[in-house]
Amino acid sequence: MRLLQYATTTDQGPRRHLGALVEGTVDDGTIIDLSAAGRAALAHEGLSAAGIRDLWPHLAPVTMLAFVQGGRRTRDAADRALEWIAESGADRDGFGQAIRHDTAGITVLPSITDPPMLRDFMAFEKHLKNVFPRLGREIPDEWYRRPVYYKGNTASIGAHGQDVAFPVYADQLDLEFEFAAILGRDGTDIAESDALDHIFGYTVYDDFSARAVQALEMTVGLGPAKGKDFHGAHVLGPVVVTADEISDPYALSMTGIVDGETWTVGSSADMHWRFEQMINYASTDEPLRAGEVFGSGTVGDGSGAEQDRWLDPGALVELTVEGIGTLRNRVVARADAPHREDYL
Amino acid sequence: MRLLQYATTTDQGPRRHLGALVEGTVDDGTIIDLSAAGRAALAHEGLSAAGIRDLWPHLAPVTMLAFVQGGRRTRDAADRALEWIAESGADRDGFGQAIRHDTAGITVLPSITDPPMLRDFMAFEKHLKNVFPRLGREIPDEWYRRPVYYKGNTASIGAHGQDVAFPVYADQLDLEFEFAAILGRDGTDIAESDALDHIFGYTVYDDFSARAVQALEMTVGLGPAKGKDFHGAHVLGPVVVTADEISDPYALSMTGIVDGETWTVGSSADMHWRFEQMINYASTDEPLRAGEVFGSGTVGDGSGAEQDRWLDPGALVELTVEGIGTLRNRVVARADAPHREDYL
Repeated sequence: MRLLQYATTTDQGPRRHLGALVEGTVDDGTIIDLSAAGRAALAHEGLSAAGIRDLWPHLAPVTMLAFVQGGRRTRDAADRALEWIAESGADRDGFGQAIRHDTAGITVLPSITDPPMLRDFMAFEKHLKNVFPRLGREIPDEWYRRPVYYKGNTASIGAHGQDVAFPVYADQLDLEFEFAAILGRDGTDIAESDALDHIFGYTVYDDFSARAVQALEMTVGLGPAKGKDFHGAHVLGPVVVTADEISDPYALSMTGIVDGETWTVGSSADMHWRFEQMINYASTDEPLRAGEVFGSGTVGDGSGAEQDRWLDPGALVELTVEGIGTLRNRVVARADAPHREDYL
Repeated sequence: MRLLQYATTTDQGPRRHLGALVEGTVDDGTIIDLSAAGRAALAHEGLSAAGIRDLWPHLAPVTMLAFVQGGRRTRDAADRALEWIAESGADRDGFGQAIRHDTAGITVLPSITDPPMLRDFMAFEKHLKNVFPRLGREIPDEWYRRPVYYKGNTASIGAHGQDVAFPVYADQLDLEFEFAAILGRDGTDIAESDALDHIFGYTVYDDFSARAVQALEMTVGLGPAKGKDFHGAHVLGPVVVTADEISDPYALSMTGIVDGETWTVGSSADMHWRFEQMINYASTDEPLRAGEVFGSGTVGDGSGAEQDRWLDPGALVELTVEGIGTLRNRVVARADAPHREDYL
């Protein structure tokens, strides 16, 4: 299943949805609104209107986080709903709401919002081999011993297609091309051999970075903060592909293009640390929760810092992970920062 | 108002509450259950039983986070409820639930659980003056230029009275004696002059630390993680004192005692960085949310690392911030880790 959060416009204001992309891409395709489809399927299963009104926000919710937290319940309901829609060809639920949306009429939202935690690792050795010498440092021995990570602001998640503005304290911006796993279950002390079962799905992740402040703040030792956590700088999207559709998460090509020029040709096969190891490490004597995001860290050549290149205002960044999709964002001057909408 | 999260035992299992400590301390005092009191006050205001059933989880919720997120609504409801209880002397709400609890019969829970973010700063210069020379380093210049912080696992919050177990990867444990502000409002680009209005209240914070792994992971540059985020290691409590009851947050004595011996004699007056500056800094081009925790960082002499002392299994740590209360925890071997209960 290829899931996404999106908004539509009604004459009474914006409305948020969770949908399954059933045809094409988020730029040109068809989405089934999982709430509307879920309501239609519940009616088909014989529930009363009152029962449907009560249950749908829980069984067919409008946020990715609630869907993930719902575990087998929400997934089963979505599977049954999609099956019923395919069979019946219904295009409205029993309350008159549209079941299908054309991607042309939507605004894509972050593929997950308000995850309980956002951890970003540093799994690709090539990225370090490119970066550390430029900083006049060797790769720390400790990197080979444990999958280290920092933690990002879970309110600063941006969306596919949304402009990313320079924060007031940055003169230069960089991208970081990653991909990310979203946990589907709570857990502590998760064995490596069980860890893949804890992954709900995968998404593309562009960890936009203000390098100057990042370098300065990191001299104190507490890790990145303002360098990474500005408005919408952790871009996740466009969709979450559920784990059952990715036969091998470590065989996905990763292609990064800036203003039409290829900056990155990589593959998830090059991950020195794998999600199983990250999950095992992070969960050791520590609780993890469904909905958490684990970023892979930057693929080799997946940032400008590795290549002495920067993103100027107006730069268009397009990051494609095979089997997941293309995440596209434009970098803009602070004065052109997008209006930050919130959705009921 | 002195607010706390706590659990009681019923013959059908544990039950969670949010209460106001109206007499004495959490070790020997009286709590008013704000949900029961709220229901009683709503009945007194003429609401129907159905209306009360519908509203109380929102106006008089059982979690600190929901209370904080409710803003003036939940606070006004609590003020009116406490007033009505004082006048009426009622001891049960209209549904037969007890309004008063003796602290003897309760389990104190973390003063806040699942905050949207947990940022921990490093505001006290003396702590750095004590620590950095022991690491063979000078205090980084950058520390004087910006209030840096790391971000902790919001699922690893411990409670007053709860044992803190050595994680499997630690041979030595340390404490970090801090106090913390809890934000009461969402915001971005919050001016220093407005920042105190964004603080809901204050609590005591013991940031237990596994120093060996912390030192190792920090060599890679992404900040602390496993060194700080093990089960229950971010202890917050015992109560949140609302900001209106703390006339000057920068004039509070801080006394830390380990096994009866005084390790720390400090004061919040010694903060080089103040919460207003932290909030201004963190919120620059970045969203903050109601319920977030801002830790002050360790007061001078507030950790063992500064004094070449460690916490052995069995050590009892008692941290008192004037006007807030005493946070008390015992450190135990991993084999004696407390059962981790969850509450509906």
